Amino acid sequence: MSRLVMKFGGTSVASLSKMRSVTSKIQKEVENGNQVILVVSAMAGTTDELIGKVTQISPLYDAREYDVIVSSGENVSAGLIALLLQSMGINARSWQGWQIPMKTTDDHSNARIKEINIKNLQEKFFLGMQVAVIAGFQGISDNGRITTLGRGGSDTTAVALAAAFGAHRCDIYTDVDGVFTTDPKITPNAQKLERISYEEMLELASLGAKVLQTRSVELAMNYKVKLRVLNSFTNGSGTLVCDEEDIMEKSIVSGITFSRDEAKVTIVGIRDKPGMAGSVFHYLSQANINVDMIIQNISEDGLADVTFSCPTSQVNAARKSLEKGKADKAFNYAKLVEDKQVAKISIVGIGMRSHSGVAQTMFKTLGEENINIKVISTSEIKISVLVDGKYLELAVQALHEAFELGRALA
Amino acid sequence: MSRLVMKFGGTSVASLSKMRSVTSKIQKEVENGNQVILVVSAMAGTTDELIGKVTQISPLYDAREYDVIVSSGENVSAGLIALLLQSMGINARSWQGWQIPMKTTDDHSNARIKEINIKNLQEKFFLGMQVAVIAGFQGISDNGRITTLGRGGSDTTAVALAAAFGAHRCDIYTDVDGVFTTDPKITPNAQKLERISYEEMLELASLGAKVLQTRSVELAMNYKVKLRVLNSFTNGSGTLVCDEEDIMEKSIVSGITFSRDEAKVTIVGIRDKPGMAGSVFHYLSQANINVDMIIQNISEDGLADVTFSCPTSQVNAARKSLEKGKADKAFNYAKLVEDKQVAKISIVGIGMRSHSGVAQTMFKTLGEENINIKVISTSEIKISVLVDGKYLELAVQALHEAFELGRALA
Repeated sequence: MSRLVMKFGGTSVASLSKMRSVTSKIQKEVENGNQVILVVSAMAGTTDELIGKVTQISPLYDAREYDVIVSSGENVSAGLIALLLQSMGINARSWQGWQIPMKTTDDHSNARIKEINIKNLQEKFFLGMQVAVIAGFQGISDNGRITTLGRGGSDTTAVALAAAFGAHRCDIYTDVDGVFTTDPKITPNAQKLERISYEEMLELASLGAKVLQTRSVELAMNYKVKLRVLNSFTNGSGTLVCDEEDIMEKSIVSGITFSRDEAKVTIVGIRDKPGMAGSVFHYLSQANINVDMIIQNISEDGLADVTFSCPTSQVNAARKSLEKGKADKAFNYAKLVEDKQVAKISIVGIGMRSHSGVAQTMFKTLGEENINIKVISTSEIKISVLVDGKYLELAVQALHEAFELGRALA
Repeated sequence: MSRLVMKFGGTSVASLSKMRSVTSKIQKEVENGNQVILVVSAMAGTTDELIGKVTQISPLYDAREYDVIVSSGENVSAGLIALLLQSMGINARSWQGWQIPMKTTDDHSNARIKEINIKNLQEKFFLGMQVAVIAGFQGISDNGRITTLGRGGSDTTAVALAAAFGAHRCDIYTDVDGVFTTDPKITPNAQKLERISYEEMLELASLGAKVLQTRSVELAMNYKVKLRVLNSFTNGSGTLVCDEEDIMEKSIVSGITFSRDEAKVTIVGIRDKPGMAGSVFHYLSQANINVDMIIQNISEDGLADVTFSCPTSQVNAARKSLEKGKADKAFNYAKLVEDKQVAKISIVGIGMRSHSGVAQTMFKTLGEENINIKVISTSEIKISVLVDGKYLELAVQALHEAFELGRALA
């Protein structure tokens, strides 16, 4: 008998008929003698509708009440799935965050899991429960208030339960067949990956591939949880997210990801002296600006240009915080130049560690397509570039070709 | 400083704009220095939609999961109202049944309140909370599972909290101006009552007037909670439900109520011997038939006809249980005659205790309209009759006139 965590996202439980079609997958695992911990999201659309109501009341809402409201969607799915499983003769019951309890910090709407008490669940499994249906995304603070884990938080619920129970596998069911070399909508010959390392998945998740919540990948990496990403509505093997050592053939580049939600801001003519950058980014961080890439050009007369990228929605807040810094005389600059028509394209692969020439191939490929690179940033297993938004598709297709991602796995 | 319980039903919180319009009533009470315990229902339609999903899965559902699912609607309203109050500068927070905790029996979907621990709420009021927004209709069992109190259960939540806190008043806000002498849709000159006794309200509620859940009236009577029924969207004084002694002028008849959801079943030619009725009603009760009125006609040859009424939806189940009794040879009968086209009309008034001739006036009035009475039943303060369904409006109008209910309060 194995212990298995299965997680179904919002599109997998979007309606009773979709729920019915996914329960056969659960039934199969139960018939194989597995104890199943099932984590469910809210029915697709529910959470957005609830958030819409909250923000209609006030853009500055109390995150504690936000959590009360948005967590209700998962409670409904958990109850409905439990009833469906019962109607198939499976011993199932629903659990809410506070019932487990799933203890979290009190950072409402973005809480982190502190501790999972598995005694209650274990006892019920011992007494014959076959499936514990867990409302994902939610927990309880030390004050006894409901918390939520941030968008996509059900992935983290699933991985945390898999770690706490020492589950043999954590299967994340979604509406795609697995993790792809890039988005098949842009590059039709994108290939599904059989395996990908935690590190690569982490980069892909943080760079905008929406298949898994970043924190869930971190957690899986830390606790060595074997994570599988599968399609709820087909029977493929999905993608296994695992330790680097479990991947025999390491690709130099595993995937190409991109994000349109990027803007570039250039601070023109700022005096270049020690502490200037610290001061600029202090103001941006005070305003909670999510600065991603940074470059600095130094000119001859002691004035520099600093360029950074951030989510498009934060450009206005960024400008205000910089204007405040100027007004406070923390720094001075000639002007701000904003560019919202940019896209970030990243190539990710653990093979980069041992192979040189990857950056060169990337830049050469983009150059051959006459795509100008505006900003570059790199990590050990990733290279990201900012380009004109209109070149996004072309750049992704060209890079997919250049790194032979379509052919390699065909 | 007073302590006040206010309860808003589903139509009062049906949308954000309706919620906004009711919050002014709450604000007024807060500005008067009251500590407010606010009980809210789910937004109108939500609970029915959730029940629809449950019954689609299986007509024989697990009531524990039913409770998980249907209780979610109240959680959403409580959170939204708390946010709205906060946006008006009021110190408010939401509470779910398990957070209070509101301890109930484990009779899921129809649980009864056992105990309310008011320590948590008291502490928060002490620390400055002005409004506790309570998700109505729900509680927690000794097993730590979510329970619900049956349809209309938020009324009972409100009265129970008023009793536990020794609140000065419990105001039930709804979409009507108060309790009427009869349904104004049928008798346009129906009058709103200023006051009505607990006993009368209890009869009216159990006879089908949907303004208050029956159990909430029982609870109010037992704990002497002053209950007011008011309209959320107007500024009337509503109806005060109170002790008989607080009503100066007792009407002989306070109200006329009716129900179309009645059917009449006659068991024709049943052998009349001791224990026969006991045996018949044993079978009906085993099948959970809600038998209301009963009459028996004894014929000369030792055979009797037994007639009873029950909700229309239970007629089929009643017939099956009687056929089973016959098959079991528990009793015998010639045939069953069903009549689903009947209506029950009841007059209620504490004055009946001290006035004779009320029944006579009722029967004479119906006779003058050529309305045949099929079954009669009485209690100390109520007379109910079963008549042909098509005469319902005529009977109610004639009785309203005969007992001068329109004029008396004009």
